Amino acid sequence: MSIAQEPVRLRRGGRSSRRELRSAHDTTMLPALKRNLPLVEPLNDEQIAKIDNASMDILEEVGVVFRDPVAIEDWRKAGAKIGEDDRVHLDRQMVRELIRTIPENFTYHARNPANNLPFGKDHAIFVPMTGAPYMRDLEDKRRGPTLKDLGDFHKLAHMLPAMHSTAHHIVEPMDHVVAHRHLRITYSSMKHSDKTFMGMTTSPKNAEDVMDMCAILFGEEFMETHAVTTGNCNGNSPLVWDETMLGAMRAFCKRNQPVLCSPFVLGGANTPASTAAAVAQLNAEALSALAYTQVIRKGCPAIYGHYLSTVSMKSGAPMAGTPEISLMNFMIGQMARHYRVPWRTSNTLGGAKTFDAQAGYESASTMMAVLMSGANYMWHSAGWNEAGMHCSMAKFVVDAEQCAMGYRMVEGVQWDDFDEALAAVRDIGPGGHYLGHPHTQENFQKAFFMPDMFDNNSIEQWIADGSKDITERALLHAKSLLNAYEEPTLEAATNEALLDYITRREREIPAVDALNDEF
Amino acid sequence: MSIAQEPVRLRRGGRSSRRELRSAHDTTMLPALKRNLPLVEPLNDEQIAKIDNASMDILEEVGVVFRDPVAIEDWRKAGAKIGEDDRVHLDRQMVRELIRTIPENFTYHARNPANNLPFGKDHAIFVPMTGAPYMRDLEDKRRGPTLKDLGDFHKLAHMLPAMHSTAHHIVEPMDHVVAHRHLRITYSSMKHSDKTFMGMTTSPKNAEDVMDMCAILFGEEFMETHAVTTGNCNGNSPLVWDETMLGAMRAFCKRNQPVLCSPFVLGGANTPASTAAAVAQLNAEALSALAYTQVIRKGCPAIYGHYLSTVSMKSGAPMAGTPEISLMNFMIGQMARHYRVPWRTSNTLGGAKTFDAQAGYESASTMMAVLMSGANYMWHSAGWNEAGMHCSMAKFVVDAEQCAMGYRMVEGVQWDDFDEALAAVRDIGPGGHYLGHPHTQENFQKAFFMPDMFDNNSIEQWIADGSKDITERALLHAKSLLNAYEEPTLEAATNEALLDYITRREREIPAVDALNDEF
Repeated sequence: MSIAQEPVRLRRGGRSSRRELRSAHDTTMLPALKRNLPLVEPLNDEQIAKIDNASMDILEEVGVVFRDPVAIEDWRKAGAKIGEDDRVHLDRQMVRELIRTIPENFTYHARNPANNLPFGKDHAIFVPMTGAPYMRDLEDKRRGPTLKDLGDFHKLAHMLPAMHSTAHHIVEPMDHVVAHRHLRITYSSMKHSDKTFMGMTTSPKNAEDVMDMCAILFGEEFMETHAVTTGNCNGNSPLVWDETMLGAMRAFCKRNQPVLCSPFVLGGANTPASTAAAVAQLNAEALSALAYTQVIRKGCPAIYGHYLSTVSMKSGAPMAGTPEISLMNFMIGQMARHYRVPWRTSNTLGGAKTFDAQAGYESASTMMAVLMSGANYMWHSAGWNEAGMHCSMAKFVVDAEQCAMGYRMVEGVQWDDFDEALAAVRDIGPGGHYLGHPHTQENFQKAFFMPDMFDNNSIEQWIADGSKDITERALLHAKSLLNAYEEPTLEAATNEALLDYITRREREIPAVDALNDEF
Repeated sequence: MSIAQEPVRLRRGGRSSRRELRSAHDTTMLPALKRNLPLVEPLNDEQIAKIDNASMDILEEVGVVFRDPVAIEDWRKAGAKIGEDDRVHLDRQMVRELIRTIPENFTYHARNPANNLPFGKDHAIFVPMTGAPYMRDLEDKRRGPTLKDLGDFHKLAHMLPAMHSTAHHIVEPMDHVVAHRHLRITYSSMKHSDKTFMGMTTSPKNAEDVMDMCAILFGEEFMETHAVTTGNCNGNSPLVWDETMLGAMRAFCKRNQPVLCSPFVLGGANTPASTAAAVAQLNAEALSALAYTQVIRKGCPAIYGHYLSTVSMKSGAPMAGTPEISLMNFMIGQMARHYRVPWRTSNTLGGAKTFDAQAGYESASTMMAVLMSGANYMWHSAGWNEAGMHCSMAKFVVDAEQCAMGYRMVEGVQWDDFDEALAAVRDIGPGGHYLGHPHTQENFQKAFFMPDMFDNNSIEQWIADGSKDITERALLHAKSLLNAYEEPTLEAATNEALLDYITRREREIPAVDALNDEF
C-alpha cells in the first residue's frame, strides 16, 4: 500500500471497519496451558534432598540479610534468630512450617472473567517481557519508549492469543516522570486490555497506589479473597532482600495479592560457579522470602520466582540460552514442586543487539527448556532482546507465535482421530498422497501448526514477495494488528474513578525527576 | 586486517604458522555424547503397543511396495506374501524375528582410531547437513558450490569439536559431472579429515564404488567385521521403496556396512494429518526396510532413520521447527528404543532464506527436541537452511557451537564440586561477590558455557566493535578456522591407490551429464 492510500483507508475507518480488520486476525486468548507432556527432571529424590538440605544449612548457618527494620522486627516476633548486620537465621522447621500455608494454586482474575486463569500445579501462562528502558519500534529503530508505545505493546499483548497477560511496564514510558510512572503504567494495562495484568513494586508507596487502583477496578472486598494482580520482588543475590522490595511485598501481601520472590541470579558473579550450588543458594533465597510472605499474612498466595543468567567470565556480561540455564530451570522446577509452591521463570531471554539469528537461537533454546521445566508463570515471553535493554516490536509478535507453538507441543499427542487417520492409510495405500483425502481436509488445521511469521516458500516465491526477512514480515504483522485493535469496554464510572485517583496522586507526589530531563 | 596485509601473512605461512593459528582454536573432537538427562517420552506402554500394532496391521494388510525385482525375489524366498503391484505383505512375527538380529549398538570406525565412535543406545553423535545444491559462501553469497567448497566444509567439520563426522556431500560439487561426483565426494571426506564419514547411495553402482574405496582405506577384511561408513536409503512415503535405494542398500549390507532406513515424511502430504498416525505409517515403512536389511545379511548393522517435516496446507511447503515435529521425534525415539534399533533424526532444520531470526528459532527448537528425544545419530546438525536448498558457511559454524552447547546440557548436572561450591557460599556470605573467589577461578570454564558466536556485550561495546551481526561474526570465524586448517596425514600409498581408483572409474563411467552444462 502506498503512503497516499493510507489516509483514505483510515478515513473509511471507525468501529465496523476495525472489526473487519480484526476478523482477519484470530485474537481469541488461548486458555491457560495445561501440560500433557512429561517434564525433564534431572534430579532424583536423593539429589532433591541434597539441595534442600544445603539450602536449609545456608538459611540456618549463613543467614539472609533483610535490610529493613520492619522485616527484622517481624522476624524477631516470629521467633527467628537475628544475628549481626540484620542477618536473619531461619530454622528449617520454621521455614517448612511457614511455606506450608502458601496456596499450591489459585485463580488469577482478569476484569473480564472469561480471561481468568488457573495458576499453579500443571497450568502455565505466558507473559510479555517487562522493564525495557529502550525499544525497537515499528520501523525497527532503537529509541526511548513513550506512554503511547507502552499502550501499543499492551494492545498487542491483548490481541496475541498466547499472551495471557499484558504485564505492566513492558517498556518504560520515558516521557513521564519516574515518580508518576507507576500510575500511568497501571492505568495503561487496565485500560487497553481485559486480560490479567501485573502491579508495579518500584516502592512501597507505589505498590500501595497499585493496590488502591486494583480496588477501584475489582472492589476492595473482592481483592481480600481473590488474586487480581501479581507483584515482583527481586532479591539481591547473594542472600540479601532490601527495604524497597520488602515494603512493596508487604503492600501486596496485606491485600492478599500474590508476590513473586525472585532472587536475581548472575551465575558465577553472585553465585558459585556451579549449577547445583547456584540452585542451592537461589533456593535458600527464594525460601526465605516465601517464608516472610506468610509472616506478613498467613495463607497469602506467593510465587517462587527467579531471574536467571550465567555470566561470561570474559566480559562480565550476562548470557542467555546457555546449557546451564536450561539445567537450572529443570532443577528449580523440581524444587518448587517439592515445596508445592507455584513458580515463575523467564522465557525467550537473549543478548543480541538486533533481531538476528542469535536472538532466535537464544529465545528458542530458552523457551524449549522452560516448557520442559514445568514453569507455571513464564515471564519475558515476548519482545526481550539485548539482555532486556530493549523490547522489540518485531520480536514481540514472533515470540508470541513461538509461545503458541510451544503451547501446542506441551498439549502433547492427540489421539482422538487415530483410527480415522489409520483408515486413511488404507484408503491411500502405497505411493498415493493425502492432500485430497477427507480426513486431511477435516483435520489439517488442528493437526499441524502453520506459523505465519515463518516463511517456508521457495526462494523464487520469497523473492517475488519482496525478499522480506523475518523482522520486516513481523513489523507488517504488528502494524496490521494495531490497525485492527479494538479497546475492550471499561465502565465509564470505573474509568473516571481511576483517572481521578491518578490526578490526585500526581498532585500529591512531587514530580521532580532527573531522568525526565534526559528524554 | 587490510587486504594489502593479507598476502604478507600468507607468504609467512606454512606448517608452523598454521599450527600457531590452529592453537587459537580448540579443535579437539568431543567424544560421542553420553546422555545423562532424562528423555521426553510422551507415550506410555499402552500407546507404544498401539502404534506398534497399527504399524504391524499396515505391514500385514496394506503391504509395502518394493519396486525392485531383486528385493521381490529376496522377499519371496524369505517367505513373505507378494500381492499385486509388488506389494509385500509382512507378517508381524516375521518382522519381529528379522529385526531382532540388528545390533543395538556398534563402533563406527574412523581412519584415525582416536576418532572412533560408540554408536547406539545412550550415545549420540552430531553430523553436518548433507545434500545442498546451493551454498551461502564466505561472503554470504548464494551460489552453486564447487568441489573446493565441499572441501572447505569438510575442513570445517574436521575442526569443529562437536562435529563427529564430515558426512559426505554436505554441498553438491556442481563443477563435477553427476556420474563422477560420488568418487570425488568420497575422496574429499576421506582426505580432509580423519573423523568418520558417510557413503553415497545415489545408485547401486555408486554405492559399490564407495565400498571399494572404503576397502582401500580400511582393508576389505576389516570391513567384514567393522562399520567404517554409513549409507542412507530414503523411502518414498507412503509405503514404497525404490530400486535405486534398495540396490544401494544391498551394496552396503553385503559388505556389512550400516544403512539408514529413512522414510521421507512430509506430514499431511504423504502421511495422514495426525501425528500419531503419521508415526504409525513411518514406523511401518522403517520396519519393512530394517527387516529387509536382515534378509540381505543377517546381523548386519542397520539404523532406524527418517526425514521429517510437516507441510503447510497454505502453500504445500515443508515446515520445520513446528510443535508436531518435536512430538513425532519424541515418539519415534520411543519406538526405535522399543525395537532396540539405533536411530537417526534430523537436527537444525529450517526454511529461512537467509541466516535471520527465523533460522535461529527453527534450528534451536528442533535441536532441543532432538536432544530430548534421545536420537543416536543427529543428521543435518550444521549449515542447513532454506529447507535444505543451501548450506550456509555462517550457520555451519554457529550450529556447530549450538551442538556443543546442547552436548553440555545433555551431559546433565555436575555434582563433583558441590561441597566446595557450598563452602564458597559460606566464605562469601550475604551481599558479596564470587568473581575473585578461588572456587570461581578454578571452575568457571567448566561451570558455564561461554558461546563465542553470541555477542553478549553492551550495545556501546558492540557498536565500538563494528556493529557486527551474527552472520558477519560467524564468517570471520569460519575464515579464521580455514586459515588454520591442517590436513591430517593420509599414508601416501593409500592416497595413491584411492586416486588410481578414481582415475580408472572416471575413465569407465560415461561423463555425459546435463547438469554439468548448467554450472
